[in-house]
Amino acid sequence: MADKIYRVNMNDMSFKIEDVPADWMGLGGRGLTSTIVAAEVDPECHPLGPNNKMVFAPGLLSGTSAANSGRNSLGAKSPLTGGIKESNVGGTIAGIMAKLGVKALIIEGIPEDDSTFYHVHVSKEKVEITAVPELVGKDNYFVLDAMEEKYNKKVAVMTIGRPGEMKMLVSNISVRDPKGKLRSHGRGGLGAVMGSKKIKCITVDAENYKEVTYADSDKFKAASKVFTKALQENPISGEGLPAFGTNVLVNIINEAGGLPTRNFRTGSSENAEAICGETMAENIKERGGSTTHGCHAGCVIQCSQTYNDKEGNYLSSGFEYEMIWAFGANLGINDLDLIAEIDALMDDLGLDAIEMGVCLGLAVDAGILEYGDGKEAFRLIKDELANGTPIGRILGSGTGNLGKIYGLVRVPVVKNQAIPAYEPRAIKGQGVTYVTTPMGADHTAGYAVATNILNSGGYVDPLKKDGQVELARNLQIASAAVDSTGMCIFVAFPALDDPACLPALIDMLNARFGINLSGDDVTNLGKNILKIEHEFNLKAGLSSADDRIPEFMKYEKLPPHDVVWDFTNEEIDEFWNF
Amino acid sequence: MADKIYRVNMNDMSFKIEDVPADWMGLGGRGLTSTIVAAEVDPECHPLGPNNKMVFAPGLLSGTSAANSGRNSLGAKSPLTGGIKESNVGGTIAGIMAKLGVKALIIEGIPEDDSTFYHVHVSKEKVEITAVPELVGKDNYFVLDAMEEKYNKKVAVMTIGRPGEMKMLVSNISVRDPKGKLRSHGRGGLGAVMGSKKIKCITVDAENYKEVTYADSDKFKAASKVFTKALQENPISGEGLPAFGTNVLVNIINEAGGLPTRNFRTGSSENAEAICGETMAENIKERGGSTTHGCHAGCVIQCSQTYNDKEGNYLSSGFEYEMIWAFGANLGINDLDLIAEIDALMDDLGLDAIEMGVCLGLAVDAGILEYGDGKEAFRLIKDELANGTPIGRILGSGTGNLGKIYGLVRVPVVKNQAIPAYEPRAIKGQGVTYVTTPMGADHTAGYAVATNILNSGGYVDPLKKDGQVELARNLQIASAAVDSTGMCIFVAFPALDDPACLPALIDMLNARFGINLSGDDVTNLGKNILKIEHEFNLKAGLSSADDRIPEFMKYEKLPPHDVVWDFTNEEIDEFWNF
Repeated sequence: MADKIYRVNMNDMSFKIEDVPADWMGLGGRGLTSTIVAAEVDPECHPLGPNNKMVFAPGLLSGTSAANSGRNSLGAKSPLTGGIKESNVGGTIAGIMAKLGVKALIIEGIPEDDSTFYHVHVSKEKVEITAVPELVGKDNYFVLDAMEEKYNKKVAVMTIGRPGEMKMLVSNISVRDPKGKLRSHGRGGLGAVMGSKKIKCITVDAENYKEVTYADSDKFKAASKVFTKALQENPISGEGLPAFGTNVLVNIINEAGGLPTRNFRTGSSENAEAICGETMAENIKERGGSTTHGCHAGCVIQCSQTYNDKEGNYLSSGFEYEMIWAFGANLGINDLDLIAEIDALMDDLGLDAIEMGVCLGLAVDAGILEYGDGKEAFRLIKDELANGTPIGRILGSGTGNLGKIYGLVRVPVVKNQAIPAYEPRAIKGQGVTYVTTPMGADHTAGYAVATNILNSGGYVDPLKKDGQVELARNLQIASAAVDSTGMCIFVAFPALDDPACLPALIDMLNARFGINLSGDDVTNLGKNILKIEHEFNLKAGLSSADDRIPEFMKYEKLPPHDVVWDFTNEEIDEFWNF
Repeated sequence: MADKIYRVNMNDMSFKIEDVPADWMGLGGRGLTSTIVAAEVDPECHPLGPNNKMVFAPGLLSGTSAANSGRNSLGAKSPLTGGIKESNVGGTIAGIMAKLGVKALIIEGIPEDDSTFYHVHVSKEKVEITAVPELVGKDNYFVLDAMEEKYNKKVAVMTIGRPGEMKMLVSNISVRDPKGKLRSHGRGGLGAVMGSKKIKCITVDAENYKEVTYADSDKFKAASKVFTKALQENPISGEGLPAFGTNVLVNIINEAGGLPTRNFRTGSSENAEAICGETMAENIKERGGSTTHGCHAGCVIQCSQTYNDKEGNYLSSGFEYEMIWAFGANLGINDLDLIAEIDALMDDLGLDAIEMGVCLGLAVDAGILEYGDGKEAFRLIKDELANGTPIGRILGSGTGNLGKIYGLVRVPVVKNQAIPAYEPRAIKGQGVTYVTTPMGADHTAGYAVATNILNSGGYVDPLKKDGQVELARNLQIASAAVDSTGMCIFVAFPALDDPACLPALIDMLNARFGINLSGDDVTNLGKNILKIEHEFNLKAGLSSADDRIPEFMKYEKLPPHDVVWDFTNEEIDEFWNF
């Protein structure tokens, strides 16, 4: 049976199962979510009001046997940025949605009775909506356990913790991974959108589905083999990431002088040795745990890990560079175990690690805590934020709002979203992505660190302006296309350097659907997605004045290279001329 | 000697006295402040950073003997709206600046040493900047007393309280009035801009100045007489306002179904009788005090008053309709004396009555207090806000930010500034002013209540869309021009209905400066000011999507007339076609 659109209306608790319109047929993942959001959501609507929608869509290759194809996209108007948002995640959801024939799940409206929260269960040709007062005020693992028990583990789960219930802008939507741990639809405060719709969790039936079909199974297998080989033979996706996880980047970015430290005051941290990937790998070797762990079935990179404490007891998993940077360098906590404890707490609550870490780094400027005080950071999150106390509400509103509440000027956000772990002054290509992507400061939208620092896809000097706008544009176009396939961002490394990689990816798409996409088609898909998203943002009230780095980075020199952000507005605005 | 521009740089604590450029010569008040801000302030700068400026300018007729000409304008980029802001105030400052020959006072930069606050004293051809650690943490009346003592009362004073020091977005700059009480440069959080520049107070020498000169003194006197007569013979400016103050409006607006009540949930309040102007006038008669009081020398309307408690002791002055509506109807406090106590407290702290009252009304939706609990409102302001506790910081960040912090949807702001005391759904012309004025929701920018409700300047049905955009546009053009003369907004009433009024105003301008302005020139001045301000906002990142009413007013019917906001975007955007 053909894939369908599942449409849920929380206002009258109804659902419809619709044929996929012809225009949407060739789209998946980000391409589909952004298209639907742009088509159906009033750009001027209040993101937490009745007229916003949540659109979940697996990638075009999700559910297939293709390596690293298990990313699920979520689109909506973001309550953090005020613009369009696409956030994709691993876990088990994408494959299950694809195999169930759910092309997209669209959730509309807000319940008239908002006195409780609801559970939305999607199964073959059916959606059930049930009030779950027993889950209200609980956090993610509690919900996960309840749902796994209810469905005997044959279920994909998406859930929000208390911060999402409270519509905090730092809240994620958390997703079950293959080992029963959590991954996140991060950035943009999408947990608040789910909270506004009074949805505590969404489950998708993982029992009664069929394997996806292929127009040309042999061709698919052959292309898949080439693609997997490219991933495995690339020095970054095949060696660095499996050995040290994403946290391999701490030393690399620190040495490049681009590791934002103490609320973006310098580009190198004295804590690097204590928190780096090498130290982490050593700890894992000594204590048990695992340096490799895939966020979704079919991952051959396995950049995630399981991290134990000194006694060998499980502390956290999915312990990423961005998290370790945010708390280790930007907030100055030099204790990897304590950072892991905070990571586990934030997983359970469903908090965005980047937004939260940068917000706490800024909170030092507001006098709320001291650099390096990890115990207080833990307490602020656990006791204040999770309970919605006033200081918890402040921190839960994110970096940009914290800045407004305390009248601060050195506020590292673009489009009100916290800047991630690469200093835009010292890694300028990445900075161009931050300011231009419709997503707000987002490293995954166009990972110029690859070419600025890792020599992937050539080399563009990170400290100079030359070539950065073009680099960021090309990477963003490619990323928008890749985000539509369900592929993980790290396929970018072989895609940039191995000439066999991208053709194999395209071959897989063609073999799956019996179509005939060319490389140009894929580039045009990427361009089209960016334009749709940009247009939505302009209608929502964003403008070129929002494609800007925080002003202080223009006049404050960043050590050790003593660099400022020196692009003119005209140079940046040139980005959209394509 | 010709008027000069006084320019103060807080970065290096220097000052310069400059000739007035030819282009600025014919400008005053809002026309001058908006022109200078647009010319010298980067629209993309952080409003609390080193590149914002404060521009103070008396009106063109300030310092003359013209009735009601004592308004002083302040321009800057607003940290609340993110756009340009002009805020004008009575008090003694405008006349003194004009007589001292200060065409404009421009304050730039931020001190390198930000460990204390400074006092800026302007006298003939001189500016002194002194650290005033003894005033840090004090509020307005303390500063006023200290400055009056220091200068033996021969001084104009502008000051901020603790909220301004803390750069809270609800903070005003307060100005001494002729009786030693306070008036406010309100709206837009300009107290935070002064706080960001580490200026505790600004004083202007009121001893060593000369009377202003007239190109044609006889002509000026003749025109002034006609103008004063028009003010005094108009039923609103000559009778209603002197008898009951601005608070005469409570019953009028309540009967029109346009008095926003309980966070804009209905247009009529059961508290109207308890808080109305008639009750207030009765209390004043019984207890002593005064129903008439001018905010500046030369005022013939005297809409202000002195309000005493039951024992006859002074409680507050400048006790305006907007304040009484915000706390009495929107927050539901039915005790006029308690509202007066809150008013006096907010005067001392330097808080914007509209922003604060609307914010507290919204805070009920956030679960922070209950409707009608005036004692708790008083406590929240006095103990929490003034001390910068977390809940105080939240309230101090204003209505729009409170909404974001608590994930609320029914947030009555335009351009992040709280909507004043006239319901846009029920008084639609006023609503058009709220959404279109570059100032954010502001009733004074184009007071369509006059024609929608008070039958001044004709009548346009407040419940219908017809004619409202044109009405709001014409009123805004006229107001921008009037705001340049130093005249109080209430000259609008005779200007709209008495054919002798506006020509007399223009004659006074011509006689003062020896020029030959026509009515069209004045209209063009108004148009030009609006366009300069609008252009600044567009460059600052605002767009037509910011010229919008809060979304909930489009789908939620307002009792008693059960009206919604029914303008299309195209109808509103038509405003700027002039």
